[in-house]
Amino acid sequence: MSEAPEGSADGPPPPMSKPRLETFSDGVFAIAITLLVLTIAQPSDFHRLAHQLASRWPSLAAYVVSFAVIGIMWLNHHTVFANLARVDRPFFFLNLALLATVAFLPYPTGVFGTALGRGEDTRVAAVFYSATMLVNAVCWAGLWVYASSGRRLLVAGFPEPRRSTVLFTAGVGVYAVALGIAFLNAYACLAFHAALAVYYALDPLARVRSAAPRLPSSPEPSD
Amino acid sequence: MSEAPEGSADGPPPPMSKPRLETFSDGVFAIAITLLVLTIAQPSDFHRLAHQLASRWPSLAAYVVSFAVIGIMWLNHHTVFANLARVDRPFFFLNLALLATVAFLPYPTGVFGTALGRGEDTRVAAVFYSATMLVNAVCWAGLWVYASSGRRLLVAGFPEPRRSTVLFTAGVGVYAVALGIAFLNAYACLAFHAALAVYYALDPLARVRSAAPRLPSSPEPSD
Amino acid sequence: MSEAPEGSADGPPPPMSKPRLETFSDGVFAIAITLLVLTIAQPSDFHRLAHQLASRWPSLAAYVVSFAVIGIMWLNHHTVFANLARVDRPFFFLNLALLATVAFLPYPTGVFGTALGRGEDTRVAAVFYSATMLVNAVCWAGLWVYASSGRRLLVAGFPEPRRSTVLFTAGVGVYAVALGIAFLNAYACLAFHAALAVYYALDPLARVRSAAPRLPSSPEPSD
Amino acid sequence: MSEAPEGSADGPPPPMSKPRLETFSDGVFAIAITLLVLTIAQPSDFHRLAHQLASRWPSLAAYVVSFAVIGIMWLNHHTVFANLARVDRPFFFLNLALLATVAFLPYPTGVFGTALGRGEDTRVAAVFYSATMLVNAVCWAGLWVYASSGRRLLVAGFPEPRRSTVLFTAGVGVYAVALGIAFLNAYACLAFHAALAVYYALDPLARVRSAAPRLPSSPEPSD
Repeated sequence: MSEAPEGSADGPPPPMSKPRLETFSDGVFAIAITLLVLTIAQPSDFHRLAHQLASRWPSLAAYVVSFAVIGIMWLNHHTVFANLARVDRPFFFLNLALLATVAFLPYPTGVFGTALGRGEDTRVAAVFYSATMLVNAVCWAGLWVYASSGRRLLVAGFPEPRRSTVLFTAGVGVYAVALGIAFLNAYACLAFHAALAVYYALDPLARVRSAAPRLPSSPEPSD
Repeated sequence: MSEAPEGSADGPPPPMSKPRLETFSDGVFAIAITLLVLTIAQPSDFHRLAHQLASRWPSLAAYVVSFAVIGIMWLNHHTVFANLARVDRPFFFLNLALLATVAFLPYPTGVFGTALGRGEDTRVAAVFYSATMLVNAVCWAGLWVYASSGRRLLVAGFPEPRRSTVLFTAGVGVYAVALGIAFLNAYACLAFHAALAVYYALDPLARVRSAAPRLPSSPEPSD
Repeated sequence: MSEAPEGSADGPPPPMSKPRLETFSDGVFAIAITLLVLTIAQPSDFHRLAHQLASRWPSLAAYVVSFAVIGIMWLNHHTVFANLARVDRPFFFLNLALLATVAFLPYPTGVFGTALGRGEDTRVAAVFYSATMLVNAVCWAGLWVYASSGRRLLVAGFPEPRRSTVLFTAGVGVYAVALGIAFLNAYACLAFHAALAVYYALDPLARVRSAAPRLPSSPEPSD
Repeated sequence: MSEAPEGSADGPPPPMSKPRLETFSDGVFAIAITLLVLTIAQPSDFHRLAHQLASRWPSLAAYVVSFAVIGIMWLNHHTVFANLARVDRPFFFLNLALLATVAFLPYPTGVFGTALGRGEDTRVAAVFYSATMLVNAVCWAGLWVYASSGRRLLVAGFPEPRRSTVLFTAGVGVYAVALGIAFLNAYACLAFHAALAVYYALDPLARVRSAAPRLPSSPEPSD
């Protein structure tokens, strides 16, 4: 991975390597997504193994939803980075806060799955899971607003970022709705999170960019 | 890692970086394979340590089999990616589903080893392990069918993909057989999985490709 | 990632690849930071889930502080490596000792959070956490003194390293103060560690370097 | 990371990417070394925290020894790969077996540290740890003998490999001695493993190579 050529051309190089930050972030995403499996409790009674495994289906459902969520976040993280010309220290700390919420996700996932499996305090677990996702959505919005306001870190070819900012900010509202649903019914809340994963799989940012004409001179992501 | 040259030549660049997806997948494979060790339960009674360690031999056997399985999957994943010219969003989600089954494997591995070690409900554990592998085989087949049908994502030099598609699809049937064996005998099932690992080590896809003449103009994998 | 060009030009290549050591170190940082979530104990009583989750706030606080600490260490590690022309075997072992303290951090973090949550032996836990950080600070200072004394491993463009050496050495004194505070009050100690994370986020080394004129001929980090 | 130039020049490219295998192996090393911290049991009684932490010193000692062992193995793995012109499928499986022993190491490390801390069945734990290391040494020797016999995979510039083969094979004998010591005294065995780590830090392979004149035309490792 080489430094972006504009760094050495336009004067002092950027104080932070975008590819290395990307690799570090990728590592956290890959580890968090793989640690999710540890949230499914091992059976305790092997005489009734079939029953115990069957009763863990909510943990498996929570595993699948969180796996999809982190996978899609990785994809959107990739899309955001592909549209950045450079990164700086404030961006690093906003990204670190985002990673802290991603790396934390296995914990509420485990709580959610276990609570649903036991049928105890399921709404508390749903609220906890949704609140984590809400904080995560706030981090995404903060990251994007910082990177895009005044085109601070964007590549030259990126279109007017207002619409993508609206989409990122809407994510906060959407997860606030998820939090509201959590207070009503935990299963509906899990289904809502699954539906959101499908929606985000459609990638708002990619749709915005593909709508704009691509300038031939726009710097390419060097990943 | 640089973008494939055809991206910048033929118009808009691909919306997804193949090397970065490969690195992310490699991370999940490497973490899942290393987490397998956590599936072997620590001894509980250190006064009878030799006995307790000896009684864990099925967990060790399950560790070795799953380690080989994930290692070979990594190798086949590498072979598949080396034959792709590019990746797209549907491929990403098929790959994500595949990774979800790989990252899940430590769980049934732990259940299988523990059940065999206790001699309790061993067939249930074998069915659970084999069912996971069957879902994994379906994901592999889906990934390949999507990538190869109509030569959608293949490099120019890849030969007619029909035979490799047959081999990938056959994997589904083979793991269905493993599932059937699991209902009969758990030890035979574990031995069958070990034998399959040895068979897949021979790499169907590599054999197909080596049989075909390699075109000098075929794009090389840029990993 | 390619070898630094000076390696092949000035005679025998360096016996160790700086990019590969950097990647290995990045992996340890990324894994340690993501394992932190495992230090928060899963709830044991799901009938009182809200109460149990609320009582774990010190574990969450310790998670956030340690996440920030490791994230900032990764950043400073990046800055140090960006100012190295090469690495050698003694540097490798000093770096390995540093990584051992980073990888160890989840353990005292878990102990600290749990002790605060239970209100039992909190000062012992604070001393343990602070002692780990003190050993870590000694490793940082040793790494820097080795790399910078006589400009052993520094890039040509790096200014006189005396001031940065003072800053790294001061870190040892600062964590000795944290250790002292731990003997007095565990909460004050945790707050002090949080404040230190904010301070180090300002990056002493970056400030030193930016103050010096950047030589156009200085080799750039090839990450 | 680019394919080695000899691949595209001398006809069909190698069927396996050396850099990608190196990255996968690095991942396993980095994860295994970071998982070691999970082998230290969390305190159970926080009223006697200082006592409980102090009684875990053998776990900490085992952590430090295994951390050094895996770190040095990573370094030697790096040295071996730097002297390979290419890799092939048999090498992949020998490397996979080696990685299986590395990834397994946290388990006997945890058993060893816990047994020493409890003072129960310490020699059984020492035998288990040493036997794991012996299998690991056999894998190293197998890997090297395969790669070097007939100069199968070596770079052109590597000197006559007989002496390095002797050194790798001697490792098997040395760990057989460690196994013998384990039957006598567990603490002496742990100290012997620590001493071996220091010895291997001196890197037999590097010493051999540095003694030989380096050919200017020898291909450089492209990591």
